[in-house]
Amino acid sequence: MKKKQNKKPEKDKSKELIEILKKHGAQVYEDLENGQFPKFSIPNRSISNIMYDKKLRQYILGTNTSLRSSRNTSQLRSFTQLLWLAFFANKLTHEKKSSTLRDVYYSSQAFAVDFEDQGESDNIIVDLEAVLSKPRENFFVFPEERSSIFGDLTIEYTIPGYEGKKQNLSTHPDGYAIGPSMTSAQLADTSAELVIAIEKGGLFTRFVEEQVDKKFKSIIINTGGQAPRSTRTLLKRLHEEMKLPVVILTDGDVYGEHIAMVIKSGSANAAHLRELTVPDAKWMGVWATDIDKYKLPTIPMTESDIKRCFDLQKDPRYQEGIWKKELEVFTKIKKKAELEAFSKYGLTNITDKYLPEKLELAKSL
Amino acid sequence: MKKKQNKKPEKDKSKELIEILKKHGAQVYEDLENGQFPKFSIPNRSISNIMYDKKLRQYILGTNTSLRSSRNTSQLRSFTQLLWLAFFANKLTHEKKSSTLRDVYYSSQAFAVDFEDQGESDNIIVDLEAVLSKPRENFFVFPEERSSIFGDLTIEYTIPGYEGKKQNLSTHPDGYAIGPSMTSAQLADTSAELVIAIEKGGLFTRFVEEQVDKKFKSIIINTGGQAPRSTRTLLKRLHEEMKLPVVILTDGDVYGEHIAMVIKSGSANAAHLRELTVPDAKWMGVWATDIDKYKLPTIPMTESDIKRCFDLQKDPRYQEGIWKKELEVFTKIKKKAELEAFSKYGLTNITDKYLPEKLELAKSL
Repeated sequence: MKKKQNKKPEKDKSKELIEILKKHGAQVYEDLENGQFPKFSIPNRSISNIMYDKKLRQYILGTNTSLRSSRNTSQLRSFTQLLWLAFFANKLTHEKKSSTLRDVYYSSQAFAVDFEDQGESDNIIVDLEAVLSKPRENFFVFPEERSSIFGDLTIEYTIPGYEGKKQNLSTHPDGYAIGPSMTSAQLADTSAELVIAIEKGGLFTRFVEEQVDKKFKSIIINTGGQAPRSTRTLLKRLHEEMKLPVVILTDGDVYGEHIAMVIKSGSANAAHLRELTVPDAKWMGVWATDIDKYKLPTIPMTESDIKRCFDLQKDPRYQEGIWKKELEVFTKIKKKAELEAFSKYGLTNITDKYLPEKLELAKSL
Repeated sequence: MKKKQNKKPEKDKSKELIEILKKHGAQVYEDLENGQFPKFSIPNRSISNIMYDKKLRQYILGTNTSLRSSRNTSQLRSFTQLLWLAFFANKLTHEKKSSTLRDVYYSSQAFAVDFEDQGESDNIIVDLEAVLSKPRENFFVFPEERSSIFGDLTIEYTIPGYEGKKQNLSTHPDGYAIGPSMTSAQLADTSAELVIAIEKGGLFTRFVEEQVDKKFKSIIINTGGQAPRSTRTLLKRLHEEMKLPVVILTDGDVYGEHIAMVIKSGSANAAHLRELTVPDAKWMGVWATDIDKYKLPTIPMTESDIKRCFDLQKDPRYQEGIWKKELEVFTKIKKKAELEAFSKYGLTNITDKYLPEKLELAKSL
């Protein structure tokens, strides 16, 4: 089988991050030596400074920045927290020790740095992301959630103890968890020509059993509902580094449509990052119009489903194309259909009939 | 490294299940030939027939059974549903096609078998488990949830397309998803002497990074909160087939204590099954008494936490030993502590200090 190689070695993100931290640290020292109060310039993350960028096809921050200065007594607390976090991020990155948002909160107590609660420390972590323009995974703060992946993709680990070791992801049919070691691995080679992200574990298993990986030369990813950040990063890398198109299958409801949208264009509260979006990803179903077309069994929408439809209609990303059209149909029919609804026509109807039709259609979209 | 071999070949569960189904099917035919209305005898699953068995250390059903007869017009609907499900279970098992509770619900529509909603079909699936005394995984109905596993364990797959293929579970540090293929695999060999089940993904990764698998000769399982059924089945098999002790680490709160209890002794609504419990499993922390002993940062309990404490005090399984003692301390101090709280003393404090102390203690319990 012809393999697509990834010649570009994975950037040493740790080295890059430490360089940026050093620059900021040097600035603090320089301020002090010049008899000035040290400060950080932080891109403003308030709603008024978040806008949708049609070219990048994601939310971005405007040019407003706030100064967080140790001179201002009302900012001294959050300045100190941010300075400590930069120190701690440097330590994690040097030692290559993974942590979580919650770990960081408790770790602060070892240094007598005071956070009211985890909410306060989470917020400072996002501040540091914005200052560095780097996702927190680069300074070894990872999400708890684990989704999984299966297919002919060979990765090469970079984490301590596994450097240079390779793993092909097609030998364990239940899938490989997507965590820190996969997120940081080099994507070495693949014979796949496509990535299929699917919302549910049961269907992931169906796809593996029905050899969707072989029949459609694809890598299959179980997002487990809303895709965790690690999974979104991996999807982006598969698209950019391995040049693979990404298609998304979700339940046929407004939440499913939005799961696809978040993979495609991220969320407003990550407007300061570029690592979490796959603007070319295509949501291929279950569309609202598929419900009638495929005569799927439906469930009536709840009040909160309907409210969610109206909320999303105000979102700038739902103003054109299938995003607008399908949302309108959902709002009109007030019904939803799950991916498993295809089982009405036999368990393999979704892989034998629906999937090939949708993949054919994806080529023309 | 010395390997422990599993000489006992995994029973052919599919064959066994089909035999049992055949026996029930033959009975239906026999009834019809004798001019009688066919019927099923179903172990009664009402609360009055569920009791705690101190010797088995799990809930069991009493001897009451109900007759579900096609003669009784009020039972005709549920009799037909059950008969159809037995037919469908036979089909799934023959074809070795995995499905989910939701798949079964939609599949029924292909046969014009009427279920009001998924709740009704879920209930009939549990009825069939009770009739067959076999868990639904044996007739290829699997949970959606996927937790993960890491360590020196070699498994041999039995699912179509992978029969006889082996996989060692120590090469992907983020862990291998525990799904249908792992649940049905033969456990071939291991050098591990212990299984550690831990509640959270972040700590699973910490344990792998700190080589808890090597330092403590262990297999590490991330339960991802409440352990899914597949994970509980795998824990039981590791204990029974590979003779490995199982220890459990959870957050230090009443929910954590109960996560451990469910791994140990199951739940009342699975009283008709024996495949989901590990009666010898040991909950090793975070205990309520550890909060003071290790000077852990705490979070105050909410009203609903406190209510849960009082509810569990009525549970027969919380009437002795550490289960009773720790629950009493939680109820008294009205505080809880997360596993990450140890990060106050450094990220590796939990693996360098707490874990070895607890494993030493486990030997004497």
